[in-house]
Amino acid sequence: MKAEILTVGSELLSPGRIDRNAELLIEKLGSIGLPVVFRATVGDDRELLVETAKQAFGRSDLVIVTGGLGPTSDDVTRESFAEAMGLELVLDESVLAAIRRRFSKRGYTMPDVNRRQAMVPLGAEVLTNPVGTAPGLWIKGPRHTEVILLPGPPAEMVSIFEKHVQPRLSSPGEVFRTQRLLVAGLPESAVEEKIGALYRDVDNPHTGLLASGGQVEIRLTARGGDTIQAEAKLERLVSPIRRALGQHLFSESGETLEQVVGRLLTAAGKTLSIAESCTGGLITHRLTEVAGSSRYLERGFVTYSNESKVALLGVPGELIESEGAVSESVVRAMVRGARERAGTDLALAVTGIAGPSGGRAEKPVGLVFIATGDARGEDVSRFQFPGGRARVKQWTAQTALNLLRLRLLLE
Amino acid sequence: MKAEILTVGSELLSPGRIDRNAELLIEKLGSIGLPVVFRATVGDDRELLVETAKQAFGRSDLVIVTGGLGPTSDDVTRESFAEAMGLELVLDESVLAAIRRRFSKRGYTMPDVNRRQAMVPLGAEVLTNPVGTAPGLWIKGPRHTEVILLPGPPAEMVSIFEKHVQPRLSSPGEVFRTQRLLVAGLPESAVEEKIGALYRDVDNPHTGLLASGGQVEIRLTARGGDTIQAEAKLERLVSPIRRALGQHLFSESGETLEQVVGRLLTAAGKTLSIAESCTGGLITHRLTEVAGSSRYLERGFVTYSNESKVALLGVPGELIESEGAVSESVVRAMVRGARERAGTDLALAVTGIAGPSGGRAEKPVGLVFIATGDARGEDVSRFQFPGGRARVKQWTAQTALNLLRLRLLLE
Repeated sequence: MKAEILTVGSELLSPGRIDRNAELLIEKLGSIGLPVVFRATVGDDRELLVETAKQAFGRSDLVIVTGGLGPTSDDVTRESFAEAMGLELVLDESVLAAIRRRFSKRGYTMPDVNRRQAMVPLGAEVLTNPVGTAPGLWIKGPRHTEVILLPGPPAEMVSIFEKHVQPRLSSPGEVFRTQRLLVAGLPESAVEEKIGALYRDVDNPHTGLLASGGQVEIRLTARGGDTIQAEAKLERLVSPIRRALGQHLFSESGETLEQVVGRLLTAAGKTLSIAESCTGGLITHRLTEVAGSSRYLERGFVTYSNESKVALLGVPGELIESEGAVSESVVRAMVRGARERAGTDLALAVTGIAGPSGGRAEKPVGLVFIATGDARGEDVSRFQFPGGRARVKQWTAQTALNLLRLRLLLE
Repeated sequence: MKAEILTVGSELLSPGRIDRNAELLIEKLGSIGLPVVFRATVGDDRELLVETAKQAFGRSDLVIVTGGLGPTSDDVTRESFAEAMGLELVLDESVLAAIRRRFSKRGYTMPDVNRRQAMVPLGAEVLTNPVGTAPGLWIKGPRHTEVILLPGPPAEMVSIFEKHVQPRLSSPGEVFRTQRLLVAGLPESAVEEKIGALYRDVDNPHTGLLASGGQVEIRLTARGGDTIQAEAKLERLVSPIRRALGQHLFSESGETLEQVVGRLLTAAGKTLSIAESCTGGLITHRLTEVAGSSRYLERGFVTYSNESKVALLGVPGELIESEGAVSESVVRAMVRGARERAGTDLALAVTGIAGPSGGRAEKPVGLVFIATGDARGEDVSRFQFPGGRARVKQWTAQTALNLLRLRLLLE
């Protein structure tokens, strides 16, 4: 069974607006194993809405529509879907009575304009609204498409969905299981080269790749007659992917890199300190997004100036003078200084040129040194990252956290 | 002229994803006066994409498509649109050469899989990509529809749009001017109370409010026969809004709070150090997002443990013992210690309970103390922020930067 979402309202196509309803519905449908294959947003335009409604019939088994069920004349969802399905709109006396009651309970008389909200396409099932005036409507549409109209205010949409829709869609017939695999240290094309042949011609699970900010996400969705079947289908593909990616695969449960690092540190009972130059606090910020990080993260040094590298980390001033602040020997001194001064088991240090200025031919923008260290010594890696300032910071942080993870795996 | 947006990628239909590209395009098209009448998202499904493409032709004058131009086999936008338009895909040698150059510049050989990105529908105009491998494509589609395909990574999408698309879409008949006013230190409802009466019944400029992460954005778009007219329209509303908001208005040019702080510090020739506890590096990270921040930001201390507050900032251990690490006297000692040890003109310090654990009745999660200090002394404020860990960090950082800005305005 495939679902699609149609949200209605010109305000949703205005700058600065986020379509919360579509996000909420994608999440709610996903939790009961219903994949969303299409979503669209249409303004308050009856003609366009009728056309869009007609296109939806047959494309998906289930169309969930939100918005445009209010009492005013720019709320055209009810009329447009009735027209698209060739159904007459009739006044539903019980809906009208419920709306009147809602007003009178607060001491008001129902304005005449709200009668519109009691108009129902002939044959539609009314889904009562526990928190507002507009009811939801469930209509058997053309070409075996189930059409569900829900009001736009998120609280009303969610309560009707949870009360009337969710229980009836959670069917025992087919079960879906989704898994996200997260990969660090490899560009998207390298991931594709390693695993493309494994998934390319496989239909179940369905597999998609997404690269962003120095990580690649592999998302697999399997279907089966029951949970065991779906999970077996999933595992049959996940297991060769796991082998092909080895240590590059850092999460199978949606954990972020900082969560994985935190879990490894907690398990090993080790503490950590961070010395950052070009990332300016981003690595420490990410690590402290994890609840409980105060158990292992002792402190962070953002040594932006040369003086602070000397004063806080004990990097020899002459070394900065002779090698430059962005150099292998300085990052090595930084990681050693951080570990010793903070008294932690491990330390991580980065120095680099985030740009846009400060680059030279032999040390261009994007040149970064990353060091990890423990009692046995330090490891230093050199990188040349692409992009502007924000991107260099992001790639550096991601790569540094991954190097820390790999070091923790060796412990 | 009417525009529509089609974003491609199964990940955009997965729970927890926000479609940044659609948002960015709605904004960019709005700024040149092009209304978006329809938006849709399709997964990596060639058949459905071909069908959706065909439906778009004739419905709008301009279809902007993003995503699905990557090198992997689930990137099907190129093929689907070529099929929908009945165009052959041909290898474009100059695109291929540009991709090869991009790889070799970083010392890599182009993987074979990237050849796909050099395939171009016959007759399409290639829009060079300044920051990535996949070029944009501008195609004259059926039924007078202009079709523009752009890559999915937002940075690439935006640079191609700004370089190649925006200049050609801006029409001379009517001119639009947009201004964003950014407000800190006031909730949305308070902003609305202060300025609602000024804009509510004004049609030109069109005004919208958007609140997120501790700031409120007021977006105004004015239209006129020429630039002077449009700007005059804009200023007629901006000027009373400016008076009503006073110092709460921190930016009229889109500058972020950290950029404003950086500009004020640069103008005053002052230096800054930061001591962070609950924000874990976020404030320093934000300040170092600004190019040139090394001129004024000397160092940051992320003093997560009590020991680090003592060792790095000289906070008396007994004070932490008696008052608790989250207290007015500790934040005062932190800001003083940061300023003295870093030898900077100004310092900023925060301590608080980000949660989810660590809260008690008298010191609940969300309790935060923020201090600013200079040679004349320290100012401390106490806050109680709502929300979970990430939100408390975000609100604290935003509020702290705003307090720093206000202090710099008094200098």
